[in-house]
Amino acid sequence: MPKKPFLLLVNDDGIAAPGLHALHDALAEIAEIAVVAPASEMSAVGHAITISDPLRVAEFRREGAFFGYAVRGTPADCVKIGYWALLGRRPDAVVSGINLGGNTGINTIYSGTVSAATEGAILGVPSFAISLNTYRNPDFSFAGRFARKLLPELLERGLPPGVFLNVNVPAVPESEIRGVAVTRQGMAIYREEFDKRTDPHGRTYYWLTGQKVRPETELDVDDGAVTGNWVAVTPVHYDLTRYDFLETLKDWSIVSSM
Amino acid sequence: MPKKPFLLLVNDDGIAAPGLHALHDALAEIAEIAVVAPASEMSAVGHAITISDPLRVAEFRREGAFFGYAVRGTPADCVKIGYWALLGRRPDAVVSGINLGGNTGINTIYSGTVSAATEGAILGVPSFAISLNTYRNPDFSFAGRFARKLLPELLERGLPPGVFLNVNVPAVPESEIRGVAVTRQGMAIYREEFDKRTDPHGRTYYWLTGQKVRPETELDVDDGAVTGNWVAVTPVHYDLTRYDFLETLKDWSIVSSM
Repeated sequence: MPKKPFLLLVNDDGIAAPGLHALHDALAEIAEIAVVAPASEMSAVGHAITISDPLRVAEFRREGAFFGYAVRGTPADCVKIGYWALLGRRPDAVVSGINLGGNTGINTIYSGTVSAATEGAILGVPSFAISLNTYRNPDFSFAGRFARKLLPELLERGLPPGVFLNVNVPAVPESEIRGVAVTRQGMAIYREEFDKRTDPHGRTYYWLTGQKVRPETELDVDDGAVTGNWVAVTPVHYDLTRYDFLETLKDWSIVSSM
Repeated sequence: MPKKPFLLLVNDDGIAAPGLHALHDALAEIAEIAVVAPASEMSAVGHAITISDPLRVAEFRREGAFFGYAVRGTPADCVKIGYWALLGRRPDAVVSGINLGGNTGINTIYSGTVSAATEGAILGVPSFAISLNTYRNPDFSFAGRFARKLLPELLERGLPPGVFLNVNVPAVPESEIRGVAVTRQGMAIYREEFDKRTDPHGRTYYWLTGQKVRPETELDVDDGAVTGNWVAVTPVHYDLTRYDFLETLKDWSIVSSM
């Protein structure tokens, strides 16, 4: 029997989050797993890393037994410290999730779940992020089974350097899932609103809320696919260069005349 | 005389940071400026936004006069709340900086300075981030003059939707600046180290440190250009899709057989 792959499991909802435990349990039969996850919820931390404060690490137990490391830091911190300091050996894959709530469209850039998979890709380890597109009454079982199917193929085929997968699963019964769509990141914008309130001490504060303007419905867009009950798989990288604008920019006076 | 453009100025080093004030003073003659910046230092927060806590805003004064809004939040929060709640009208540009320390290579994705310019681009406003490549004895004067030259050309020419500029300025006397290079984001990786220590109460903690492995020296890479005393201008966008891998992924069994 071939040796089981060794996984670093991470999330941004925190080490006690049901989505992480569902992912762990879905993969435990086919992989050896090291969990390194934030001690508390870290949603919308984006691709933050902790450099001005020290990181603290505690063992986390489930049913009295060792389950993994709880890091007082961000998802990206977890992957870095797991890889460089805690695991003692190189993981075969980094899997991040299962996130409570979709990470599609512009949310991709705010997502701690995605940033953890980015860190995996930076380290040259095959990686994917997986999110369930709901905030209420989550049933992670199909997403867990999907991760279990995806992992062996990911390990067998590999990915180009710097590329990882961002997977978003519709929150519907498996019988209503229509298939798997290869997608691009949606670019629909939000109309944000700041709800201005006054606290009991008379001070003003604001809550951010927002609504998507003209949601995209095409099946080759992550948002559209998930909304249409397709599992959306987006290949993502972290090279932000806009290559097709390089030549135009060379003609700007500030470049050419200095 | 044409009306002065209206700028939203932001940074990640905080509203009291000298780099922000240098940028303000460099642009004050040619633009009307609204400063909306983090109340305290927010480096390496990446593209975080604050959704689980309310945002608080205070007026910040310099020499007793109104200077801008100090937001207890991230750089991205500042641009969002400035645009949607504080300014009352649409800015003609978002300018982020001057950051203390370069934001090149992989640091682009961890940078709060860059994330603020990203928010500007998301809002469809011409935007750039500007950083000075040193952490010690910064002299922001040349970077300020560069921003002052760049802004009018940016406003005149505009940028494609979703694109902004990431500018990195070498920390050398102007006489040693060799010119302006159009660059791509460097992809050099880091070898991270976690310095493990014990606090006075006997508890373990870790400090992240890291060193670039094989720094890139090519002049068409941000890192290489800045190191070679060129101002590096990288066109950046926030669509993370790896387009050239979409077709390959469609052949994976998990996609084609489900």
